[in-house]
Order: sequence, then C-alpha cells, then structure tokens
Amino acid sequence: MRKIYLAGPDVFLPDAIAVGRRKKDLCAQYGFEGLYPFDNEITPNLQTERVDRLIYRANERMIRRADFGICNLTPFRGPSADAGTVFELGLLVGLGKRVFGYTNVVEDLLDRCRQFGDVTFDTNQKAWRDKNSMAIENFDNADNLMIDNALIEHGGYPMVRHNAHADELFSDLTGFEMCLRLAVEAVSKSA
Amino acid sequence: MRKIYLAGPDVFLPDAIAVGRRKKDLCAQYGFEGLYPFDNEITPNLQTERVDRLIYRANERMIRRADFGICNLTPFRGPSADAGTVFELGLLVGLGKRVFGYTNVVEDLLDRCRQFGDVTFDTNQKAWRDKNSMAIENFDNADNLMIDNALIEHGGYPMVRHNAHADELFSDLTGFEMCLRLAVEAVSKSA
Repeated sequence: MRKIYLAGPDVFLPDAIAVGRRKKDLCAQYGFEGLYPFDNEITPNLQTERVDRLIYRANERMIRRADFGICNLTPFRGPSADAGTVFELGLLVGLGKRVFGYTNVVEDLLDRCRQFGDVTFDTNQKAWRDKNSMAIENFDNADNLMIDNALIEHGGYPMVRHNAHADELFSDLTGFEMCLRLAVEAVSKSA
Repeated sequence: MRKIYLAGPDVFLPDAIAVGRRKKDLCAQYGFEGLYPFDNEITPNLQTERVDRLIYRANERMIRRADFGICNLTPFRGPSADAGTVFELGLLVGLGKRVFGYTNVVEDLLDRCRQFGDVTFDTNQKAWRDKNSMAIENFDNADNLMIDNALIEHGGYPMVRHNAHADELFSDLTGFEMCLRLAVEAVSKSA
C-alpha cells in the first residue's frame, strides 16, 4: 500500500489527534496508508538530546518512508502557508516524491496580502509592495510561486483551493479529500 | 570553486539587484561562487509557458547546481520566514546539500507571535496558543522546529541570529557574512 505523508499545521490544533485520525481514515478509504507526524512517538532521551531535535528526526524519517505528500497549505499566521509544512514540501520534492497540496482560503497572494496590511503600487518598478516595500508577486498563485509551481511540476496538479468556514479553517478536509482523488488518478495513470 | 545558492526574500527588495551583487561579492571574498536567483534570465516563451513557471524551473535548476545554501530566514509578513525561502531550504536538504541560515530578528518564535497578535496559555493542554487556537512551539527556536533543526542536522550550526535595525531588516548582511565564515569552517573540516 502506498504511503502518504500528511503535512500541515493540523498538528497544532487543540484536537490534533482526532483530525489526524480522520485524515488517516480517509487515506485508507482511497487505498493509501496515511503517515501523520503526530503519531511519532518521541521518547525523551535521558541524556542530552532536545525533544524538538527528536521530533525533527522522526518527521524526516517518516517523510523518507513516504511515497507521496499531501500538504495543507492554508495561510498560517500571515498570508502564506505554515513554515514547517512548506519546509516539508521542499524536502519531499528534493527526495523525488510526488506532492499534492490544498488551501482552505481561495484568494490569491496579492489579495491575501491586502487583508494583512497596506499594499501600494510602485509606479517606478511596476510592482505591488507591502509595508516593508517588499514586492508582492502577482501571478494569480495562492502563495509564493515556488510553492504553487512545485505542486504542478512535481505532482502534476495545481494547488486545490477550497473556501472553508472561518471556524473550520484548518480542519475542513474537502480540499484534502480532493488531493486524495488526484493521488488515485496519478497512481492509475502511472500504473 | 564551491557554489552557494543565495536563498531569501532579498529578491523582493526595491534594490534587489544591488543586494545580490553585495552578497555575491562577499561570497567571492570567502572563496565561493554565489548563485543569486535574480540572475536567472527568464526569456518569456512565446508559446504557452507562464513566466512564474519559467522562474520556478530556473531557480530549481540553480539549486541543483549548488553545493551549499545560505538562507535569509528573517520573519516575512508574519512571525516566520518567507515561504519561498523555506521551500528552497527543504529542497536543498532533500537534495543532500549543506545548509546555513540567518535571521535579522533575534526573538524566538513565541515572542515573535506575541508581537503579531494575541497569545494565550491553554492550561488544559499546557500549550501557548495563537488567536486561531493553534499551538505555538516553545523550544526557544527562532522559527518552526523543522527549520531550526534542519540547519543543525544538515549544516552543523544553529541559525545565526542578528539584531538588525528596522530599516535594514532584509538588507543587513552581518548574519549572512557569519554564515559564510561557517561555510569556510565546514569546508576546512571536511577537507
């Protein structure tokens, strides 16, 4: 059975374990084994290792065991996806694994930035800029171009965008299930 | 000469080209060739390819050519680093390249989150939470544990933290130059 690494800020939810169980059950319905980072049993080492280092190593090992990744790229503490999830997306791509991704906010990066603060147009350089004068990409992507295009180049599909209710921003699994359907399609094509 | 990929939101600065030149000059002073993504010449394809796809491919190719990466992990539009840079950090690690990183904000993730909004303590689960009830890691790391620990596991050094002036948040190269010194040390150890 092919293994899918379940990347996302879901691990930070108050009901992180229940959400992971729902994701793993959905994986099983589509014929996959879901690998959820919260399931890594960390046994604090009595010597010198820090707990966060042990979690890092367990997650990296789990990613190396996976065949695919499905990443929850919903904006997290700003207009872009969770940094830990984005790191894992890059790691999956570098390891040659197929990647799928979804976001529970449909707006593109420029509109997301507008919701988080002042956005102005720089008429000299013909670029939108944030309050730190940093250019904002305007390619209709959901996030930084490296993220949207990594999914297309290394997964074969654009990021799935779903408009979730505010109170289910990180727990709505509509986009996740769509990614599972894409994974089934990708497997059947390559079979 | 060893090649270092220069990852960072520096490409979004109004003087992105000048900053890239300063970084490449510093690389040369330390005996490295700096690869700066802004130097990728994108020739818009007259057929069907989107410019952002061409930029993605050029950046990925440049990363594959590099021996090391130095990542500017200064907080960007929130408490965490730029999503594009974090993706590239993951890609470098997945490709087995050594990585170094710096941030121009010294505070740890919990203090950074406090600056960006309400932080409360969840006495039931013994966790700090943001305004979306998402747990905030409290390991004294600068960013998500995957980022800080990737640098230690795959570079050999913790993230360099430097307290830059607000008006040089993304252009102060003190931490960058410290990473170059670490790269020299790493090369000499492995020689």
